[in-house]
Amino acid sequence: MLEALKEEVFRANLDLVQHGLVIFTWGNVSAIDRASGLVVIKPSGVSYDTMKAEDMVVVDLDGNVVEGKLKPSSDTATHVVLYKAFPNVGGIVHTHSTYATSWAQSGCDIPNIGTTHADYFKDAIPCTRQMTPEEVQGKYELETGNVIVERFKDLNADFTPGVLVNNHGPFSWGKDAHNAVHNAVVLEQVAKMAFISFNVNPQLKMNEELIKKHFFRKHGPDAYYGQ
Amino acid sequence: MLEALKEEVFRANLDLVQHGLVIFTWGNVSAIDRASGLVVIKPSGVSYDTMKAEDMVVVDLDGNVVEGKLKPSSDTATHVVLYKAFPNVGGIVHTHSTYATSWAQSGCDIPNIGTTHADYFKDAIPCTRQMTPEEVQGKYELETGNVIVERFKDLNADFTPGVLVNNHGPFSWGKDAHNAVHNAVVLEQVAKMAFISFNVNPQLKMNEELIKKHFFRKHGPDAYYGQ
Amino acid sequence: MLEALKEEVFRANLDLVQHGLVIFTWGNVSAIDRASGLVVIKPSGVSYDTMKAEDMVVVDLDGNVVEGKLKPSSDTATHVVLYKAFPNVGGIVHTHSTYATSWAQSGCDIPNIGTTHADYFKDAIPCTRQMTPEEVQGKYELETGNVIVERFKDLNADFTPGVLVNNHGPFSWGKDAHNAVHNAVVLEQVAKMAFISFNVNPQLKMNEELIKKHFFRKHGPDAYYGQ
Amino acid sequence: MLEALKEEVFRANLDLVQHGLVIFTWGNVSAIDRASGLVVIKPSGVSYDTMKAEDMVVVDLDGNVVEGKLKPSSDTATHVVLYKAFPNVGGIVHTHSTYATSWAQSGCDIPNIGTTHADYFKDAIPCTRQMTPEEVQGKYELETGNVIVERFKDLNADFTPGVLVNNHGPFSWGKDAHNAVHNAVVLEQVAKMAFISFNVNPQLKMNEELIKKHFFRKHGPDAYYGQ
Repeated sequence: MLEALKEEVFRANLDLVQHGLVIFTWGNVSAIDRASGLVVIKPSGVSYDTMKAEDMVVVDLDGNVVEGKLKPSSDTATHVVLYKAFPNVGGIVHTHSTYATSWAQSGCDIPNIGTTHADYFKDAIPCTRQMTPEEVQGKYELETGNVIVERFKDLNADFTPGVLVNNHGPFSWGKDAHNAVHNAVVLEQVAKMAFISFNVNPQLKMNEELIKKHFFRKHGPDAYYGQ
Repeated sequence: MLEALKEEVFRANLDLVQHGLVIFTWGNVSAIDRASGLVVIKPSGVSYDTMKAEDMVVVDLDGNVVEGKLKPSSDTATHVVLYKAFPNVGGIVHTHSTYATSWAQSGCDIPNIGTTHADYFKDAIPCTRQMTPEEVQGKYELETGNVIVERFKDLNADFTPGVLVNNHGPFSWGKDAHNAVHNAVVLEQVAKMAFISFNVNPQLKMNEELIKKHFFRKHGPDAYYGQ
Repeated sequence: MLEALKEEVFRANLDLVQHGLVIFTWGNVSAIDRASGLVVIKPSGVSYDTMKAEDMVVVDLDGNVVEGKLKPSSDTATHVVLYKAFPNVGGIVHTHSTYATSWAQSGCDIPNIGTTHADYFKDAIPCTRQMTPEEVQGKYELETGNVIVERFKDLNADFTPGVLVNNHGPFSWGKDAHNAVHNAVVLEQVAKMAFISFNVNPQLKMNEELIKKHFFRKHGPDAYYGQ
Repeated sequence: MLEALKEEVFRANLDLVQHGLVIFTWGNVSAIDRASGLVVIKPSGVSYDTMKAEDMVVVDLDGNVVEGKLKPSSDTATHVVLYKAFPNVGGIVHTHSTYATSWAQSGCDIPNIGTTHADYFKDAIPCTRQMTPEEVQGKYELETGNVIVERFKDLNADFTPGVLVNNHGPFSWGKDAHNAVHNAVVLEQVAKMAFISFNVNPQLKMNEELIKKHFFRKHGPDAYYGQ
């Protein structure tokens, strides 16, 4: 069932390690088959060294396991909330990558201060509000999804393919698992460069027009980057 | 004697190098056989390139060599104090890993500001008080163990599997040598991210409830992370 | 056509990856054949894994494609402006390398504070002014070249083989593609060390005479470094 | 002539690259044969990829070439001054390693704030005063040696095997070339950790007694570290 998608999700998980975004098992990738509404996701706490494509778990949009011998990622409920809220999203990544996680721990949005950021994210990379004791003690992983969706009330998830969960770490997404990993790499690099830039000059100035230019040079109907 | 444990300690020492926590011979791992009360530890100042499993030294809980051609790590007395004080500990690691050592040099606890930290350490990673001239001039390595134990008077070593020795560097521990190395990797990563987070926002806010949630999601009777 | 130069430009592009200056396709190298006035440049958005020397695109000094099946780099117009303005330049590199890009985002020149910098750049590495909305909305890539040239009104491009484009990233150049890559590596390293140096001591003092000495030890008629 | 020493110096130069201390040709190692008073040193500006042991150059203590087809390192005069001033030194290393060079550019000594530092350097790693225009315009490389020696007027070079040359970078030394490289690695790591430590806590406190303890645990007649 969904063997091609399992292979894709499996490879995307290994790519996180290749890109240096994951230590031990601190990350997970999923992808959705929109036709059937089924999500393929990494199993919980399984070592990347021994993991196989067939270990990927299939869940439905209520988070119930449909196929798989292993328990799905403990963050499954968060992924499912996002797939329901963001209809164009095909793949989701969660990591604890160093710089993005550090910004998440700081509780700050990453301002859009340069073209590297603007080539992929139209606006600041938003940080969610802190979760309440009730949310944490309740259906925690589902509520994590909810605070992300709340933060995107006035934001377009297609133009801002990532978020920082306060005191936690980044989620990113894209049209498929591969693209979501790509955006996770960008988010980490953008977080690193913003850290350095603000250290060099805390009063640095953004350039709105330049940001818009770069985003739409690569995205939307007037894009002209690439082949 | 204790050949399996020697092999385990030997491999755990090499893992420190693999994880980038050790330059030259700046680190050591030990493990204890609780049944016999014997500790297996790395020899002092031996290059990791030429070291073999059979070079591991066996000492008793008074720090006396029971078996081994080489001198044990100069930090042996510290390890022994910790094994006596913390009955659930099976393995201990000492490194001079970059970010954890830098926090130790700064003399500050690493506050628990995110879920990466909280997945392994329930509270701040504590820093010991500075040692007195008398302690340093006396049985220095044993007194190093004592200031660690003193710092844990009101802390649970099972819930806080690591410490920063002031002006020196980190010790970590776990149920066995492998787990102690795992916690050394976490401690280093957590130290790095805390450094960046406080740079981005010195006024960042913690979330007590979230921290508790993450720790007990992975530890204790109600844990549900992993298979 | 220009097969040797294509090979050279192709290899220089791969060298950017080897030196850790480029993630994904975030960089481009070109070189000019001054005799014919033709420029060889990397195609736009092509993966470094599959790119071949024959994929390099030949353009003239108006930016028109003369040979090549693929679209040239989206930054081609910037390269062309620089070749016209700086007659001794034989190769140009653009990257989003971490520290140089961070300085560009900060909007600050990199002051010449040490001999590593002075061995290659006689003066500060200048940052261009922010581009106006009109420039960004107009012929953006050409205007990017123009703000660089404007910044060099009172600077010698032969003595300062690189620049930071405000809110964007670095360009560097040299007598050929290989030398331009060399200067891109230097620029990144100098940017990293300046970041650290000013963190250690924001009041650090430069030494004009030492800088002059080092630059002319390696460049110009009185150079005596090397064989 | 001095073939074994040439091999040693050659390998020590390559070790600098292995340890990540050198980019391109930005470093040099020498060693002295005290019996003959001859120094073996790396040639100037030769790529590490093509360099061979037989390319090493032999000079006397006036800096004159005694044997070798290539020009010696442009820093030869500095090395020679140090060999004359520090009679126990057998090998010298100069690099532009990232963190040590950044401290040199900041013009600050690296305070001795931890046991990693104290295991190798008894005191702060000193930074020389800025060189005067006369010194820079005169016999520059020789004067570089002189400002180092001046800085060691009240310091023991055997207990402080390294220095930062203001606005330039580190020199380190040891009983032979291998040991000098070892100290160069330590200096870089100590510089990195001091940068982080002071960022975490600008008011951090040193511990004189602990520093003395660690230095003499590894050095001098009462040393007990190692086999």
